[in-house]
Amino acid sequence: MASTSSLTLSQALLARAVSHHATDQRRDSHLSLVSLPAFSGLKSTTSASSRATTTTNRRRRVSSSHVRAAAVETLDVTTETSLVEKSVNTIRFLAIDAVEKANSGHPGLPMGCAPMGHILYDEVMRYNPKNPYWFNRDRFVLSAGHGCMLQYALLHLAGYDSVKEEDLKSFRQWGSRTPGHPENFETPGVEVTTGPLGQGIANAVGLALAEKHLAARFNKPDSEIVDHYTYAILGDGCQMEGISNEACSLAAHWGLGKLIAFYDDNHISIDGDTEIAFTEDVDRRFEGLGWHVIWVKNGNTGYDEIRAAIKEAKAVKDKPTLIKVTTTIGYGSPNKSNSYSVHGSALGAKEVDATRQNLGWPYEPFHVPEDVKQHWSRHIPAGAAFEAEWNTKFAEYEKKYSEEAAEFKSIMAGELPTGWEKALPTYTPDSPADATRNLSQQNLNALAKVLPGLLGGSADLASSNMTLLKMFGDFQKDTPEERNVRFGVREHGMGAICNGIALHSPGLIPYCATFFVFTDYMRAAIRISALSEAGVIYVMTHDSIGLGEDGPTHQPIEHLASFRAMPNILMLRPADGNETAGAYKVAVLNRKRPSILALSRQKLPQLPGTSIEGVEKGGYIISDNSSGNKPDVILMGTGSELEIAAKAAEELRKEGKAVRVVSFVSWELFDEQSDAYKESVLPAAVTARVSIEAGSTFGWQKLVGSKGKAIGIDRFGASAPAGKIYKEFGITAEAVIAAAKEVS
Amino acid sequence: MASTSSLTLSQALLARAVSHHATDQRRDSHLSLVSLPAFSGLKSTTSASSRATTTTNRRRRVSSSHVRAAAVETLDVTTETSLVEKSVNTIRFLAIDAVEKANSGHPGLPMGCAPMGHILYDEVMRYNPKNPYWFNRDRFVLSAGHGCMLQYALLHLAGYDSVKEEDLKSFRQWGSRTPGHPENFETPGVEVTTGPLGQGIANAVGLALAEKHLAARFNKPDSEIVDHYTYAILGDGCQMEGISNEACSLAAHWGLGKLIAFYDDNHISIDGDTEIAFTEDVDRRFEGLGWHVIWVKNGNTGYDEIRAAIKEAKAVKDKPTLIKVTTTIGYGSPNKSNSYSVHGSALGAKEVDATRQNLGWPYEPFHVPEDVKQHWSRHIPAGAAFEAEWNTKFAEYEKKYSEEAAEFKSIMAGELPTGWEKALPTYTPDSPADATRNLSQQNLNALAKVLPGLLGGSADLASSNMTLLKMFGDFQKDTPEERNVRFGVREHGMGAICNGIALHSPGLIPYCATFFVFTDYMRAAIRISALSEAGVIYVMTHDSIGLGEDGPTHQPIEHLASFRAMPNILMLRPADGNETAGAYKVAVLNRKRPSILALSRQKLPQLPGTSIEGVEKGGYIISDNSSGNKPDVILMGTGSELEIAAKAAEELRKEGKAVRVVSFVSWELFDEQSDAYKESVLPAAVTARVSIEAGSTFGWQKLVGSKGKAIGIDRFGASAPAGKIYKEFGITAEAVIAAAKEVS
Repeated sequence: MASTSSLTLSQALLARAVSHHATDQRRDSHLSLVSLPAFSGLKSTTSASSRATTTTNRRRRVSSSHVRAAAVETLDVTTETSLVEKSVNTIRFLAIDAVEKANSGHPGLPMGCAPMGHILYDEVMRYNPKNPYWFNRDRFVLSAGHGCMLQYALLHLAGYDSVKEEDLKSFRQWGSRTPGHPENFETPGVEVTTGPLGQGIANAVGLALAEKHLAARFNKPDSEIVDHYTYAILGDGCQMEGISNEACSLAAHWGLGKLIAFYDDNHISIDGDTEIAFTEDVDRRFEGLGWHVIWVKNGNTGYDEIRAAIKEAKAVKDKPTLIKVTTTIGYGSPNKSNSYSVHGSALGAKEVDATRQNLGWPYEPFHVPEDVKQHWSRHIPAGAAFEAEWNTKFAEYEKKYSEEAAEFKSIMAGELPTGWEKALPTYTPDSPADATRNLSQQNLNALAKVLPGLLGGSADLASSNMTLLKMFGDFQKDTPEERNVRFGVREHGMGAICNGIALHSPGLIPYCATFFVFTDYMRAAIRISALSEAGVIYVMTHDSIGLGEDGPTHQPIEHLASFRAMPNILMLRPADGNETAGAYKVAVLNRKRPSILALSRQKLPQLPGTSIEGVEKGGYIISDNSSGNKPDVILMGTGSELEIAAKAAEELRKEGKAVRVVSFVSWELFDEQSDAYKESVLPAAVTARVSIEAGSTFGWQKLVGSKGKAIGIDRFGASAPAGKIYKEFGITAEAVIAAAKEVS
Repeated sequence: MASTSSLTLSQALLARAVSHHATDQRRDSHLSLVSLPAFSGLKSTTSASSRATTTTNRRRRVSSSHVRAAAVETLDVTTETSLVEKSVNTIRFLAIDAVEKANSGHPGLPMGCAPMGHILYDEVMRYNPKNPYWFNRDRFVLSAGHGCMLQYALLHLAGYDSVKEEDLKSFRQWGSRTPGHPENFETPGVEVTTGPLGQGIANAVGLALAEKHLAARFNKPDSEIVDHYTYAILGDGCQMEGISNEACSLAAHWGLGKLIAFYDDNHISIDGDTEIAFTEDVDRRFEGLGWHVIWVKNGNTGYDEIRAAIKEAKAVKDKPTLIKVTTTIGYGSPNKSNSYSVHGSALGAKEVDATRQNLGWPYEPFHVPEDVKQHWSRHIPAGAAFEAEWNTKFAEYEKKYSEEAAEFKSIMAGELPTGWEKALPTYTPDSPADATRNLSQQNLNALAKVLPGLLGGSADLASSNMTLLKMFGDFQKDTPEERNVRFGVREHGMGAICNGIALHSPGLIPYCATFFVFTDYMRAAIRISALSEAGVIYVMTHDSIGLGEDGPTHQPIEHLASFRAMPNILMLRPADGNETAGAYKVAVLNRKRPSILALSRQKLPQLPGTSIEGVEKGGYIISDNSSGNKPDVILMGTGSELEIAAKAAEELRKEGKAVRVVSFVSWELFDEQSDAYKESVLPAAVTARVSIEAGSTFGWQKLVGSKGKAIGIDRFGASAPAGKIYKEFGITAEAVIAAAKEVS
């Protein structure tokens, strides 16, 4: 069981370090003295900017030791504009050069968004480059993930070890830490995995939710240990995707005031001008959703406009803010800017030269001018100071509030409380028959008592999915300390928000729920869970034709197969109480691999032979009257059909057959067992095998073999009472018996 | 090949009948004389309505022969309000009684939406109950599909043969025509399949797009043969789903003025009051999207308000209209109305009695009072008159515009032009190597010349998916006659809109495109294509790690397997030019089964042995040096890896092996071949089999058997140049050769 992997461990170690080295208390008092000067004090005369670097205006250069904390904390920006523009152009050219070297990538967004990127990472955000996992860091999400060179350039300038010059030079190459889209599992400093559009802004909603929740649970009037912002940049593409509307509707509903999203309004998408497909009034839509909306008309050189917008956004505490920043895609490229051609291809040597000329950039590729390097260098000590200050604060917190601190540390480090698994309910064959969705609720409620990071909810099906944690109220705008999250009918947003929660802190264990068939609505988010190693628990009820009358639109058929084919995800279909508990044990332990639990609407008996330990092996024998590992026939099933296999076995045994019944609750876990174990369950010599599952037979040939038989459903379902459909579709003990006789 | 199935045939026959029986010309002149009286002329004194049926106010009863056409056409409603209320209560009780008998279903919506439902079907919509497929009918979509008893009750009252009293009594039972959610393939009169929320409103956008497109192409100043409205009812659930925002953004962008959507604003969803998860300002959002928005404050008894809103909506010709109708869910139920408990469960005998009492309904279950029956009976002759009038109009059109009429009829009837398949391009091994996405473009452009119903586009990836039809311009608000549809980055909406287009007219052949991995965004819509027998063509490029640098977020792995497991859909992965042409031939012929074409970004050679005929069989031999159907080893591949299999075969043959190479371009088509054919391709005796595919190996055991070997990718991809990833992942001829030696 990969319950504690390297990353989780390193996070845990870093997190633990926090409370041991909290000695520097200076920052705290220092910060409180910082004033917020008016922006009129800033000078930014440079406008149309192809002459950016020629500006000669020289304001007093603040010493870097002075700037270090204040500028970052407060937008008290006294850096001269010429240096800002030089830094912005550095970002642009790092992106241009990396894309050019790879001859692949998206230079347009970094060139257009460099100003807001610079202001965020250089003036606004609080982070520690040498510990990308410092708990209280501001989170940044590049929802328009194709523009990842923007983020890599910023991480590089800020001093993150994950993006050195050689990493920029190996952009999009095999084994590099700078893949074609931002991947949190490759590049420390990247919070979430983006690229599929709209996912990132929804992740950001999850990150902001996590902050609001943890702040409400753990902050004290005298110590705000949880206090960070979540920033995102999204483009026209993200705006068009439905998932962003879903997540943004929730962000406003929840009053996530510390979520600040920059909308890169550049009027260009891959197919050309957004006029051809995207003419809605985005501001008005966001106002309708309940956001505070600000428009920065000059995102190319309007540094003060951007700064003022961020200040205003921070002042609005009860609403998330959308800062629409009108930019020019590919800014600086004389022949390709403001066109789709700069979106997703290298500029080409000629246009790179022209852009260097145009922006007055005399340097070699990948060069960071010394003054820019010097300017950014303050972020390493500043980041260390932020973390040290926070460590001090937390040490004091821990002294005063030891119980809360312990709980908080377990969330921060991702360490499960010792003995947590003892809370899982157990069942005997005499326990009452019940739907696994109800058994799931028993597990969730048992776990809620012992797992401080467990929180989640349903897409408007709480009373059908049975996901309410009875000991808690609803997470809402004014009750963010609670743990029942009401997602509304927004499956896709729900999944992506849970990814954000999971990746906020290793000890947060988000779960979310809908009908199993509606995983189709959220599949892109589930895939990102799997790819980005976010251990979300997907509670998917009504998992077959067993839901009955709602009919084929609501009856999953191909869904089990479709997730068994997906990498790095556990597809679990428990058969009864013990298996449901086992599924939860596995799901909770797998913090870097999401789990999907397929659960029944209908009642199922508690079967003899099922066990938590069995589930952990993925496939295991629940009953057997054979000897010498040579049954006459092996019957296999999952979930609600395991009962049918067991019944068929009983009948066959009455006729003198040696029959083994195997539960295949998780194919992935079975695959991971030793060959010896697999042979002990499925001896190669026994080719008489029959499987039964109320879903597609696709894939079962792997387990039943060429001579076996798979009973399942290779058509869409039907609207009728469940028992009737089972019978009409031949998902019966009689069918299993007949097949067993046929193959053995 | 199920190219012409029963439904398509019946539609074709009905459509053909149109032009032969167009004799009744009275309606045309009659209609033009109808005036539009002010609504103040109407009397609707009954308000809070528990006393509805006791109202004694008796206005002049217009003879049904007079009412017949005028009321339906023009909202010239002179039906007395008491009869309207009686009809509305009939609808309510048919829903209540059917749900009660089934002890399953959703009574709340029909009870709340009965007034708007009555007005639509009794006063507004033009349809012919005896020919549900009459071309020029108004389309109605119940996007909140769980409320299907509303639609069944309306179809029943209107005189559709598909919903007789016995059908209402077998609601949600095995084999009935009244399944738990509306299914177009079960119930003539139901246009599309709804239930999964948000799909229906997006389908409605597709239906309205089709109307606007066909009207622009075929209408003449003197003859508007295409002229109908599309109505939809959507609820809070539909509003929360991202897909509805995507589709509604496009509806406004395209100026679909004849789309009128009723938003059943009842403030209740399954989890309770919408306050818990849905507090956005929907009106403002829709205004932002560019819709005309009207609010009917009293949807329960405000008949005139509803009528006035529809009139206003029709007057706004350049924008779709959202009519927000505030209703009470479960209206009339004294103890359960306005609560979630009435949403999705039978009321229970006691509450049914109380509701009968409350609404003054003395009748037995399923009873339609005689005066209500009499009132609705006019729709059968009125519908016949509508169709006859239209037939006359079309006959005249045909005389004047024979060429257009012929094209129009082929779209209306779904008949493919004779010899259309000759337009498909052919290739030889000497034809230049090319990416199948480019070969796909050649096919699309060849087909555009011969298929009048072909139209479609991409989700902002036209230049990557290669889907532009060069002979046409963009379908836009002011150029709706064109055929390149620009969907923006809205995959889910795109799929559902295409379902609407496909189900508008049997001869419309919509295609849509994105990267294959982003089928995850639109999977719910694709599943509805398959379920509802909508022959959409999904053009899915960048179909493997072969896309290279964009990395794992963009590289499909499990997608082929996931669609192979889905019922009633063709998953095609062509290897070269001939196979791409074959895939298009299959896709075009399968009008009741969607097709997905997985296409490469990278260049592929034209392979000897591939053919259109081969593709039609799903799996076929492209080369073989064995005799007696006894090769030493069978190598199999699909798409871009078929080339690798062919290369490996060449090497192995050099070593003296008898090697067969099989292309498995479509598993579904191969499954449908005779046992003899299958044995001729994959002889049971030959167990030495190796497959290669740049995707999950899940499912391949079915073809390679227990002793064979499947080469594939059971992990996520990577960001690097494509060739490098292929090599690192072992998707190589060397690997095939090694495996072949291992198994043979």
